[in-house]
Amino acid sequence: MPTTPHSLPRRRLLTGSASALAAAGLASFHQGALAQAAAPAAKPLPGYAGWKKADAVIVHSSTTIETKRSAFGTSVITPTDQLYVRNNLPSPPESIVADRDAWEVQIEGVKQPRRISVRELKTLGLETVTMVLQCSGNGRGFFPSKPSGTPWTVGAAGCVVWSGVPVRDVVKALGGVADGMKYMTGTGGEVLPPGIDPKSVIVERSVPAEALQDALLAWEMNGEPIPLAHGGPLRLIVPGYTGVNNIKYIKQLAFTAQESDAKIMSHGYRISPPGSKGDPSQPSVQEMSVKSWINSPLPEDGPQAAGVVQIHGVAFGGMHAVKGVEVSIDGGKTWKAARLVGPDMGKYAWRQFVLQAQLPKGTHVLASRATDMQGNVQPETRGENQSGYNNTSWADHAVTVTVA
Amino acid sequence: MPTTPHSLPRRRLLTGSASALAAAGLASFHQGALAQAAAPAAKPLPGYAGWKKADAVIVHSSTTIETKRSAFGTSVITPTDQLYVRNNLPSPPESIVADRDAWEVQIEGVKQPRRISVRELKTLGLETVTMVLQCSGNGRGFFPSKPSGTPWTVGAAGCVVWSGVPVRDVVKALGGVADGMKYMTGTGGEVLPPGIDPKSVIVERSVPAEALQDALLAWEMNGEPIPLAHGGPLRLIVPGYTGVNNIKYIKQLAFTAQESDAKIMSHGYRISPPGSKGDPSQPSVQEMSVKSWINSPLPEDGPQAAGVVQIHGVAFGGMHAVKGVEVSIDGGKTWKAARLVGPDMGKYAWRQFVLQAQLPKGTHVLASRATDMQGNVQPETRGENQSGYNNTSWADHAVTVTVA
Repeated sequence: MPTTPHSLPRRRLLTGSASALAAAGLASFHQGALAQAAAPAAKPLPGYAGWKKADAVIVHSSTTIETKRSAFGTSVITPTDQLYVRNNLPSPPESIVADRDAWEVQIEGVKQPRRISVRELKTLGLETVTMVLQCSGNGRGFFPSKPSGTPWTVGAAGCVVWSGVPVRDVVKALGGVADGMKYMTGTGGEVLPPGIDPKSVIVERSVPAEALQDALLAWEMNGEPIPLAHGGPLRLIVPGYTGVNNIKYIKQLAFTAQESDAKIMSHGYRISPPGSKGDPSQPSVQEMSVKSWINSPLPEDGPQAAGVVQIHGVAFGGMHAVKGVEVSIDGGKTWKAARLVGPDMGKYAWRQFVLQAQLPKGTHVLASRATDMQGNVQPETRGENQSGYNNTSWADHAVTVTVA
Repeated sequence: MPTTPHSLPRRRLLTGSASALAAAGLASFHQGALAQAAAPAAKPLPGYAGWKKADAVIVHSSTTIETKRSAFGTSVITPTDQLYVRNNLPSPPESIVADRDAWEVQIEGVKQPRRISVRELKTLGLETVTMVLQCSGNGRGFFPSKPSGTPWTVGAAGCVVWSGVPVRDVVKALGGVADGMKYMTGTGGEVLPPGIDPKSVIVERSVPAEALQDALLAWEMNGEPIPLAHGGPLRLIVPGYTGVNNIKYIKQLAFTAQESDAKIMSHGYRISPPGSKGDPSQPSVQEMSVKSWINSPLPEDGPQAAGVVQIHGVAFGGMHAVKGVEVSIDGGKTWKAARLVGPDMGKYAWRQFVLQAQLPKGTHVLASRATDMQGNVQPETRGENQSGYNNTSWADHAVTVTVA
């Protein structure tokens, strides 16, 4: 595949991210996030993801790989070889995708619980859903508090076409959900490290049982069998929910009366007040909310020629379709309606937006602000929390470009 | 990327294609097409397309690579690494994609003709269009007359997201189309072999000038810069028109009073009566028409278990959206309405269809028949022509499967 048009150092990309711009009218950089993100030199791709397009991604670690902001393009779909990776545990061995149809998932909390193979799942139903897959911590790199965890900016997200059997068809085939079950709990098939309490590391997440209506047990993404790095042979897809709720290598799907007591559910991925630890009393990171960002122009494009520019980016509503996007070229003082372009792939997909603007010589702070069909407007500021989750701040996602 | 689940010999795939099924109720194989297609052993991928997924394609020659029928999946979009290749001339050197923005195209037949770089094109407009790209000869392998040319079955087609500037925006920026121009003529940037009349080999095609309304000058496909193998850095995209009209490495886009006199236009790609040669009096191969085919189950899946099966495939209308698809499990004697699934990516994209069916023990001939929004119905029989173009016959595209 061809190399991406721009491959300037990552540092230049990050210096374009700014926050609290509306007040200042100019960028004030987050030195904290910058220091974190600019430190390591380019790392090699880990073996299980060695087929990723090295030019299009930032390798943070063997289990955390981010899409470069400049690589998103304008084709709606994020190619699999550019899509981010965030694994809570190392991937299982490649052997689990040797015979994909033989993979089995235990279905519990239904009237007739049993194991079902992918081969059989393929006879039960078929649906294709386009969905934004986004890590709960996407945008963490913009928090001045330097939360622990990967300092993702925008690239722990992508728009992916998933194909598989609707969970509702599976449930129907097994007699329906058992009485009293309030949650849909998925358990991942990762190999657990020996010698420690499984509950402390197992990837097991609960979402409200109603989420089954749009959920899939998926075996295909973007036209190919799901790669191991992305959860193949079988992944639970819960449209509108952050990445961690979309269980990879799913080995059990259970309808349960209680939320899982696995640590990743009870204490992990909680919206904790700054300075506090996660606990079950705090809100869990689940549904995504309205968000957008600009992907071009970017600071790493270098100084722009004066004149007309097509400002473009992506916008999504999480649980609701995007109604519209506004773009500002003055750090949020004034806004203009952008045009939505390209195919509408459904309410869980992102839309592309474009605003044609005339940029005179000087420095410009470009921001985007999306509104969903429920009237929710992307906020100016992030919701502060200890772990840096759910950053939808338009100010944090603004970029500063220079016109020569 | 993971290997495709099935990689049985090509021969088994091809033996499932049948024609004139409705009358017989069973498959009568085209021995001609089979003999042609089964002859060569697997060939290696040519260098410029060495990044293609070898398991998902059939390499006919260095300039003709077909997607396996079993590789289409159910995610609407055809991944670039599985998309077919059909080049009329060898690809230009990789150096032309070293600086993509520097590529220039000469625009002629407008009020203010001039050269424009990709860099400047990116300031003029932006649109994203999803389109079925299909070789004029897709389905040629089903012609019993054994036309010369690649014996494609279904895999010289794919559904691709293209992104670039609308031709209408370029034309507007240059003062509009000059008076009296009836055609839009694109010229490819291939290196021509020395010592022969350029007109005899140059890739130059004319389409009606009205096609400019939906056409793009595209620099991106499926989220990445267009690979050299597919026409990067810049390709003319004429939605609804067969592959050859979508000029790769476009170096000139001209609005002209006459059709091009290049041989590929005047004598090539003509619907010639069997036994005759192409000439300018015959219809040119341009707009696609309504077509569909089944991608699963296929004979190479081996004998099916008795029971429920999800019969799925793709359908497109060419110039019009698909209204519906019917599926037959008895070789066309009776039909049932299939369900359209997944995102509708616009009238030039294909739709996925699914029919859940109960298949008893025995042999079954599965066929699909699409209808477009204009009421055009996919025909039972192919239109006979010398070169094997535009095969939309539902009987030719039927498959025979066995239930054990």
